[in-house]
Amino acid sequence: MNDRLPAAASDGIQQDWQLTGIVGQLREARQQWRQIRGRSGEVREFPSRAALRDIIAALCGVLFPLRLGPTDLRESSEDFYVGHTLARTLDALLLQVRLELDYQARLDAVPAHDNALRASRLVQQFAATLPALRRVLDSDVQAAYQGDPAARSVDEVLLCYPGITAIIHHRLAHALYRAGLPLLARIIAEIAHADTGIDIHPGASIGDSFFIDHGTGVVIGETAVIGRHVRLYQAVTLGAKRFPPGEDGVLQKGLPRHPIVEDDVVIYAGATVLGRITIGRGATIGGNVWLTRSVAPGSHITQAGLQHGSG
Amino acid sequence: MNDRLPAAASDGIQQDWQLTGIVGQLREARQQWRQIRGRSGEVREFPSRAALRDIIAALCGVLFPLRLGPTDLRESSEDFYVGHTLARTLDALLLQVRLELDYQARLDAVPAHDNALRASRLVQQFAATLPALRRVLDSDVQAAYQGDPAARSVDEVLLCYPGITAIIHHRLAHALYRAGLPLLARIIAEIAHADTGIDIHPGASIGDSFFIDHGTGVVIGETAVIGRHVRLYQAVTLGAKRFPPGEDGVLQKGLPRHPIVEDDVVIYAGATVLGRITIGRGATIGGNVWLTRSVAPGSHITQAGLQHGSG
Amino acid sequence: MNDRLPAAASDGIQQDWQLTGIVGQLREARQQWRQIRGRSGEVREFPSRAALRDIIAALCGVLFPLRLGPTDLRESSEDFYVGHTLARTLDALLLQVRLELDYQARLDAVPAHDNALRASRLVQQFAATLPALRRVLDSDVQAAYQGDPAARSVDEVLLCYPGITAIIHHRLAHALYRAGLPLLARIIAEIAHADTGIDIHPGASIGDSFFIDHGTGVVIGETAVIGRHVRLYQAVTLGAKRFPPGEDGVLQKGLPRHPIVEDDVVIYAGATVLGRITIGRGATIGGNVWLTRSVAPGSHITQAGLQHGSG
Amino acid sequence: MNDRLPAAASDGIQQDWQLTGIVGQLREARQQWRQIRGRSGEVREFPSRAALRDIIAALCGVLFPLRLGPTDLRESSEDFYVGHTLARTLDALLLQVRLELDYQARLDAVPAHDNALRASRLVQQFAATLPALRRVLDSDVQAAYQGDPAARSVDEVLLCYPGITAIIHHRLAHALYRAGLPLLARIIAEIAHADTGIDIHPGASIGDSFFIDHGTGVVIGETAVIGRHVRLYQAVTLGAKRFPPGEDGVLQKGLPRHPIVEDDVVIYAGATVLGRITIGRGATIGGNVWLTRSVAPGSHITQAGLQHGSG
Amino acid sequence: MNDRLPAAASDGIQQDWQLTGIVGQLREARQQWRQIRGRSGEVREFPSRAALRDIIAALCGVLFPLRLGPTDLRESSEDFYVGHTLARTLDALLLQVRLELDYQARLDAVPAHDNALRASRLVQQFAATLPALRRVLDSDVQAAYQGDPAARSVDEVLLCYPGITAIIHHRLAHALYRAGLPLLARIIAEIAHADTGIDIHPGASIGDSFFIDHGTGVVIGETAVIGRHVRLYQAVTLGAKRFPPGEDGVLQKGLPRHPIVEDDVVIYAGATVLGRITIGRGATIGGNVWLTRSVAPGSHITQAGLQHGSG
Amino acid sequence: MNDRLPAAASDGIQQDWQLTGIVGQLREARQQWRQIRGRSGEVREFPSRAALRDIIAALCGVLFPLRLGPTDLRESSEDFYVGHTLARTLDALLLQVRLELDYQARLDAVPAHDNALRASRLVQQFAATLPALRRVLDSDVQAAYQGDPAARSVDEVLLCYPGITAIIHHRLAHALYRAGLPLLARIIAEIAHADTGIDIHPGASIGDSFFIDHGTGVVIGETAVIGRHVRLYQAVTLGAKRFPPGEDGVLQKGLPRHPIVEDDVVIYAGATVLGRITIGRGATIGGNVWLTRSVAPGSHITQAGLQHGSG
Repeated sequence: MNDRLPAAASDGIQQDWQLTGIVGQLREARQQWRQIRGRSGEVREFPSRAALRDIIAALCGVLFPLRLGPTDLRESSEDFYVGHTLARTLDALLLQVRLELDYQARLDAVPAHDNALRASRLVQQFAATLPALRRVLDSDVQAAYQGDPAARSVDEVLLCYPGITAIIHHRLAHALYRAGLPLLARIIAEIAHADTGIDIHPGASIGDSFFIDHGTGVVIGETAVIGRHVRLYQAVTLGAKRFPPGEDGVLQKGLPRHPIVEDDVVIYAGATVLGRITIGRGATIGGNVWLTRSVAPGSHITQAGLQHGSG
Repeated sequence: MNDRLPAAASDGIQQDWQLTGIVGQLREARQQWRQIRGRSGEVREFPSRAALRDIIAALCGVLFPLRLGPTDLRESSEDFYVGHTLARTLDALLLQVRLELDYQARLDAVPAHDNALRASRLVQQFAATLPALRRVLDSDVQAAYQGDPAARSVDEVLLCYPGITAIIHHRLAHALYRAGLPLLARIIAEIAHADTGIDIHPGASIGDSFFIDHGTGVVIGETAVIGRHVRLYQAVTLGAKRFPPGEDGVLQKGLPRHPIVEDDVVIYAGATVLGRITIGRGATIGGNVWLTRSVAPGSHITQAGLQHGSG
Repeated sequence: MNDRLPAAASDGIQQDWQLTGIVGQLREARQQWRQIRGRSGEVREFPSRAALRDIIAALCGVLFPLRLGPTDLRESSEDFYVGHTLARTLDALLLQVRLELDYQARLDAVPAHDNALRASRLVQQFAATLPALRRVLDSDVQAAYQGDPAARSVDEVLLCYPGITAIIHHRLAHALYRAGLPLLARIIAEIAHADTGIDIHPGASIGDSFFIDHGTGVVIGETAVIGRHVRLYQAVTLGAKRFPPGEDGVLQKGLPRHPIVEDDVVIYAGATVLGRITIGRGATIGGNVWLTRSVAPGSHITQAGLQHGSG
Repeated sequence: MNDRLPAAASDGIQQDWQLTGIVGQLREARQQWRQIRGRSGEVREFPSRAALRDIIAALCGVLFPLRLGPTDLRESSEDFYVGHTLARTLDALLLQVRLELDYQARLDAVPAHDNALRASRLVQQFAATLPALRRVLDSDVQAAYQGDPAARSVDEVLLCYPGITAIIHHRLAHALYRAGLPLLARIIAEIAHADTGIDIHPGASIGDSFFIDHGTGVVIGETAVIGRHVRLYQAVTLGAKRFPPGEDGVLQKGLPRHPIVEDDVVIYAGATVLGRITIGRGATIGGNVWLTRSVAPGSHITQAGLQHGSG
Repeated sequence: MNDRLPAAASDGIQQDWQLTGIVGQLREARQQWRQIRGRSGEVREFPSRAALRDIIAALCGVLFPLRLGPTDLRESSEDFYVGHTLARTLDALLLQVRLELDYQARLDAVPAHDNALRASRLVQQFAATLPALRRVLDSDVQAAYQGDPAARSVDEVLLCYPGITAIIHHRLAHALYRAGLPLLARIIAEIAHADTGIDIHPGASIGDSFFIDHGTGVVIGETAVIGRHVRLYQAVTLGAKRFPPGEDGVLQKGLPRHPIVEDDVVIYAGATVLGRITIGRGATIGGNVWLTRSVAPGSHITQAGLQHGSG
Repeated sequence: MNDRLPAAASDGIQQDWQLTGIVGQLREARQQWRQIRGRSGEVREFPSRAALRDIIAALCGVLFPLRLGPTDLRESSEDFYVGHTLARTLDALLLQVRLELDYQARLDAVPAHDNALRASRLVQQFAATLPALRRVLDSDVQAAYQGDPAARSVDEVLLCYPGITAIIHHRLAHALYRAGLPLLARIIAEIAHADTGIDIHPGASIGDSFFIDHGTGVVIGETAVIGRHVRLYQAVTLGAKRFPPGEDGVLQKGLPRHPIVEDDVVIYAGATVLGRITIGRGATIGGNVWLTRSVAPGSHITQAGLQHGSG
C-alpha cells in the first residue's frame, strides 16, 4: 500500500535516462577489464555470501538447537530438527563447495570433471567433524562464562557475546580452510567481521577454551597459532611484522609470519603483537603494549609505568 | 524462479549424508553438556534477539514518529500511529520480559507463578518512562548537532549518526537493566554494538546531552558514571583496572570499578581511562592518553609532546 | 505457524496499557521540541536509509554485473540486466534526490518549484559518471589484490574485502556529495561504516588504486585529500587537529583541516595523522605513530624503537 | 539456502537464448498495436490490483477491527489501530484514485490539472461513508447468520462465509463506482470474483440484509436492483436478456437491462433470471428455474414437477 | 526501491483526512453492535485462516513428503523432515484448537480452565489419525488416476487435480469436525472452496477412493453420506430439499437432510440431488438431472432424451 | 514482534507429541504405497507449481510490459526489462522443462542423458513463439473489448477480465503441450482454473479473437477445436459424450471426443455441448441448452420456449 505517484508524472516531466549510451560505456569498461585478464564468456558462478550466511545460521541451530535453533523447539523433537536442518544445509553447502571447486578449476585452468564427487566427499567429511566442533565450542562458552565476571549464565554468553559469535564462525571457517576451501572460509570470516568487528583469518589455529571480550578491532593473522585457555580483549592485533622501511614489502605467501600464543595467555586491550614470536605459556600482555619479540612463560608485560586494564 | 536443478541429480550422484550417525553424536555431545550442568527436559524459552530488534525499531518510531516512523506519516495522524505501535510493541515486550523472568526463575530455582503479573507491571512502568526518555534523547541530538561542525541539521544527526543510534539503544536498555531485566538489556546493547561498533554496557549511567563521534571501538563498562554534556570520540575505553600481574584476576561482581566522568568532559579518540577514578568537571583528555588516576576539574591531559585531535 | 496464545489470555490478565496518557505525554514532548525550533505541520519527507541501501546494492550490480549482480546472470544478457536495473535504480535515486532538495529548501526557506527539474538533471549527471567510476574501482580492486599477499584472485577481493565495500560506497557517496547532496552522501557513508567499521566522510577526495586492509576503526575526515596508490591499515585516523586545550574548540566549517596524503604512501595500523599536514609522496608511516606535522616524500616514520607492522 | 547449481553449468551447455531477436520482435508487435491505436510515449500508470487488494484488506480491518484486524488487537487500542490504518489506507487509495482519474483524462484527452484535488475530495467523501457502510454490513452478517441453520455465531459468518467476503467487496466497490471510479470498482469486484466465484458487477444496487449461500457461479449484472432481505444460492444468474438470434447483439451501454428483485425474495441454486423484469416482494424462485418475465409479489416459481432446494 | 514521492507533497496539497470524526463514528457503530449483543471487553481471540492455511500446507508435506514437501527433499531424510514438521505443526494446531475451545467457552459462557488440557489431547488424537488418513488419501489418488483417461501418473493427479486438493482438505477438516472443532473445520473447508470452487461441508462423511473431476461448482452438504468408489463431476449438488413454498423455511439443525450416496455411484456434471434420499449402489446419474427421490441400485438416470456427459 | 508465550509453558503442560510412533507409521504407509508401485530411492524431482506461477507472471510482463510488467516501467526502458526478464524466466523454465523430461524418462524407464540438450532446444523454440503469441492475444483483448458493452478500454479488459487471464494461460500452456510437455501445461492450466474458475484443458485448440465472459464454471475438453471469433459465457461445457449407461465407461485416450466449434459461434451461459459434434460457423447456442448433435452453420439453438441470455 506504499506505492506513490511516480515523481515524473506528478511533475509533468517525461523522464528518459538515455540509458543506451551509459549501458554501452559500462559494457566497454567491462570488456577492457576482461581483455586485460584474458577472460570471456564468463559466468556468474561464485560462492554466495548470502547463501553462506544462511548456512552458518542453520549450522548454529544444528550445533545448539535449544539456544540458536527455532524459538519453539523442545527437547523431545530436537533430533528431528537437527536431522532435517542438516540435510538441507549440507545440500546447500554442497553447492557452495562445488562452486568454489569449479572456480578454482577455472582459475588454474584444470579440468573440473571430478568436482562433483570431490565436493560430496568434502561436505561429508565436514559434517563428520560437527560433533567434535560442538564440544570445543562448549569449552569456549565455558571460558567466556568464567572469564567475564558480568556473565550470569552460559546461555547469556551463547546468545549475547560477539566473541562467541566470532569463534563459532571461525571454527566452522577453519574447518573449510583446512579442507582446501579458502574462499568459503574467507567469506564466512568476513561475515563475522562485519557483525562483530573481530577479524580472524580462517587460517589461524586456535585451541579450545578461547575467549575474546568486547572484541571490536581485534585482528588475528593467517598463520597465528593460539593455544588453549587464551583470552583476548578488544583491539588486540596478532599481526605480521613488516620488513624495515625502504625494503620491498612483499611477503612470501604462506610462510609463518604471525605470533605463537601458548596456553593460558591473557592479552589486554589494544596490545599489538607482531611477527613469528612466541608468547610463553601463562604470560600476560598489558593494554596498548607494542610487542615484536618473544616473551618467556609466565611473564607480565606492561607499558612503562602503566597498569594493564580493560572494560 | 531461482530454483536450480539439484546438484545430485545433474551429476548422477545419489547423495546420502549418513545423517543418523551424525545426529546421534550431536545428541551425545548435548547430553554430556546437560548432564554436567544437571539440565534436562529443557525448553527453548529465551528472549529473542530478533524480537528485541523489532521492538527497539518500533520504539524508535514511537519516540520520533516523523523521523524514525513510517515514511508516509503525517503530523495529523501521529497519535494514531504512536498509540497503535505502542500497543503492539508493549505486547511484544511483555512476552520478552516474561521469558526473562521465567528464565531467571529456572536459573534460581524459584517459583514463577507471579511472573505474569510482574511482567505486566514492569512493562507498564517502562512505558511510563518513554516521554521523559524522549526529552533526554532530544538533548543528545542537540548535543551532537552542536558538537559536530559538519552537522547540517538535527534531522541529519538523528538519521545518520551512529553515536545517536548507540545512545537511543543504551537509554532503552538501561531502563530495562534498572528494572531487573539484565538479559534483555544486554541483548539490546549488543544489537547497537553490532551496528555501530560502540559497546556500552547497559549498566552504565549516562547524563543528558551525551555525544559520541565516529564511535567505532568505544567501550564503556558496567559501573561507569557519566555526567551531563560529555563528549567522546572513537576508540575511547572507560574500563576497569586489572589487579597487578601475578594476583588472581577475579573481580567481585557489582563493585564500582569503572570511571566517573563529570559534566562537560571531552575525551578524544583512543584514550583509555581505567578504574574507579574521577575525571573532574570540564576536563579534557587528549587522544591516545592512558589514564589510571583521577583528574582535577578543568584539567587538560595530553600525551607527552602531542596535541589531542580527532577525525 | 508461529503464532502463540496471547500471554494476557493464558494468564487471565486483561492487559490494558493505559495508552491515552502516554500518547498524550509523548505528543507534548514532540510539541515542545517543535515549538523551540518553530516547526509545525511537519511531514515525514526525508531521504530513506533503507531505500539508499537498496539503491547502492543495485548500483553495485550495475557496475560489476557478473560479480555483484544476480547469481544466475550470464554474459549474454548482461546489457539487459544493466539497462533494466539502471532504469529502476535511477528512478529510485531520483526520488531520494528530490527528497533531499525539498528538505534543503524547507531548511533554507527557499522555494522548491524547480526541484523536480534539478533532481532530474543531477541524476542524469550522476548516471553519466558511472562508467568512469567503474574504471577507478577496477584500479582499487587491482590495488587490493596486489597489496595483500593472501589474496588469491581479484574476484575474492571484490566479494570479500571490507576495504573494497567501503571504497565502492565512498566513490558513489562522493559523487553525490560533489553534486550538492551531502545528506544522501552521508547516509551512504554510514551504511558502509556500519557494515565495515570504516568511517570515510563522503567529502574526502581519494585517488585511484586505493586500498584499506582489515579496516575496522579507520576514520578519514571531510577535507582529507588522498593521492593515488595509497594503502591504509586498520584503525588509521586521518583527522583534524584540535586547538590547544583551554580555547574554544569550535572549528569553522568547511576549512581544510585534514591531512593531504600524496601518492604511494603506506600508513600502518593504528597510526593517527592529524591536521592539514602533508605526507609526502612514497612515505611510510609506522603502526601506532602519532603525527601532527608534515613528512617529507620518501620518509619512514616509526614509533621510537619499534618496527611498524600489521595483521 | 535453496540455490542450486545452474543447469547449464552442470550440463556443460553454455546457454545463450539469442534474446536480441526475440526482444526486437516483441517490440515490433507492441509498436504495431500502439500505432493502430495512436499511442506513443506510454507510461505504466494504471491502478494496481495488488495495491487494491491490500487496501481492501486494510479497510476490512478498519470496519471490523476485532474480527478482521490484526490477531493481537484488543478493544482498548482499537481506535489507535483504526485511525492509523485509515490514515495509511486513504493515502494508498488516494494514489489509486489519482491513477484512475489521470487514466480517464488520457483516454478522453482532457486536461488532468485538477485531478489531485478531485482525487483528494473523492477519497474524503469515500471515507465519510465508512461508518454507514459498517452498519449495512452488520445487517448482512445478521442475515447470513439467520439464513443458514448451520451458522453457529455471527463471528463464524464474518470469518468463513464467501458470501460475506463478496458483499463486503461489493459495497466498497459500489461506493467507488458511484463516485465515478468504475475501474477501481471493477478491479475490486474481480478480486472478490477470483476468491469466491461470485461475480457481482460493481454497478449493481443491493439493499441491506443481503445473503448469498455457497455462492460459486453467481453472476449479478451491472443494472440489477436488489431490495432488502434478499437471499441467493449458488449459480444464480441475474443477467441481461439478449435480443432474438439473427439481430445485431450490441446493447446500448447503461440502459437498464438486468432484473429488479424486490424485498424478501429468495432465489434458489442455479436459477437464471434475465432481462429488466421484476421479481415481486416476497417471491420465491426455485432451483434451476429459467425466468424471463416478471413475477408477482409472493409468488412461488418452480420447475415443472420439481421442488426447489439447495446444499 | 519503489518508493515514490508522496502525492500530497508533489501536488502542493497538505492532506488531512479529518480522521477523528470518522474514527469516532466507526467506534459508535461498533458499540451499537456490541450493546445489542451484550458484548464488551472483547478480545481478538479467534482461529486464524492464515495460520490454518499454513498448517494444512505443512500437513500435506507430512503426508506426502516427496510430492508436497520441500522441493529438495530426498528419501534418506524423509523421517527427519516429517518429524520436525509435525512437531512445529502440531504446536501451531494446538494454539488454533485452544482458540476455538476458548471461543466456544465464551459463546456458551462456560469455564475454560481445562481447555489447555483438552486442546492437547485433541491434537494428540488428531495426530494419531494421520497414518490412516494417508492410506485413505492414497485410495483417492488411485481413484482419480483410474477415473480420468487423461491422467498420466499418480504424481500428476496429486500435484494438479483440484479434486484431490479438495479431498485432502476435507479429510483433515472432517477429522477436526468430528473432534468437536467445527470452526477450524469450516475454515479449512472454505480454504479449499476458495482454491478449487468445490464446497464440501466438513460434516459430510465420504468413503475411500473418492474422485471429483473438474469440480467447479460442486456443493456437498453437512449430513451427506457418501460411500466408497464414488465419482462426481463439476457443478454437482448434494443438497437439502426445502419445504414447500409458503411454509417457514427454518430447518432444524443437525437433522439428516442431505443425500446418501452408496458405493460405486457416478454423478455427472450439473446434476442436482436434494434431500435425504438414497442413490443405490452402482447407480449412474446423468448430467443436469434434477433428483429428489431415491434411486435403486444399478439404475441409470438421465434427462429425458439426452445422454449424460462431461468434459 | 508477534511472538507469543508458548502455550505449553503458560499452561504448565510439558507438551510431548510422541512423534516417534507417528513418524514410523507414516513411513510404513509410504513404504507400502511405494512397494506396490515398485518405487524406491525416490527423489522429489517434479515440476513446481510455485515456480510455474512465477514464470507465467513474468511472461505476462514480457508480453505486455506496460500493462502487466512492473508498476514503474516506462516505454524508454521496455526493451531492457523485456530482455532481462526473458533471460531469467527462460532459465527458470529450462529447469522446469528439464524436470518434466527427467520425470517422463523415469516413468518410461528410458535414458535421460540428452534431456539437457532437449530441454534447451524446447525452451528456445518456445521463446521464438512469443512474438506471434502476443499478436494472437492482442486479438483476444480486442474481441473482449468489442464483445462486452461494459468494457471501457482495452486496458481495462487486459487488467480485469478473468477470461483474458484464462486465455493467456491457455495459449502459453498449449504451446508447452504441443512441445511434448503435458505436465507443465496442465499445471499452468490449473493455476488459471484456480484463479478464474475457467477450466480449459491445455490440449484444446483455440483460434484468435476468443472471448469468455464471466467464466466461472466453463469447462473445455482436451480435444476440443475452437475457431476464430468465438464467444462463450459462464458455465459452458465443451465436453465428451459418455457411452450409454451400462457399458464400460473407459474412453480410449487421445481419440477426438470433444466438440468442434467453428468461427463466429456464440455459446450462452450454462450450455452443455458434448461429443465430437460440430457447431457450424456463425451459429448461436442459447443458455442452458443441452446439445449432443451437430448444428448447421448459422443456426440458432435455444431451449424450448426460452430466449438465451447472460449476465
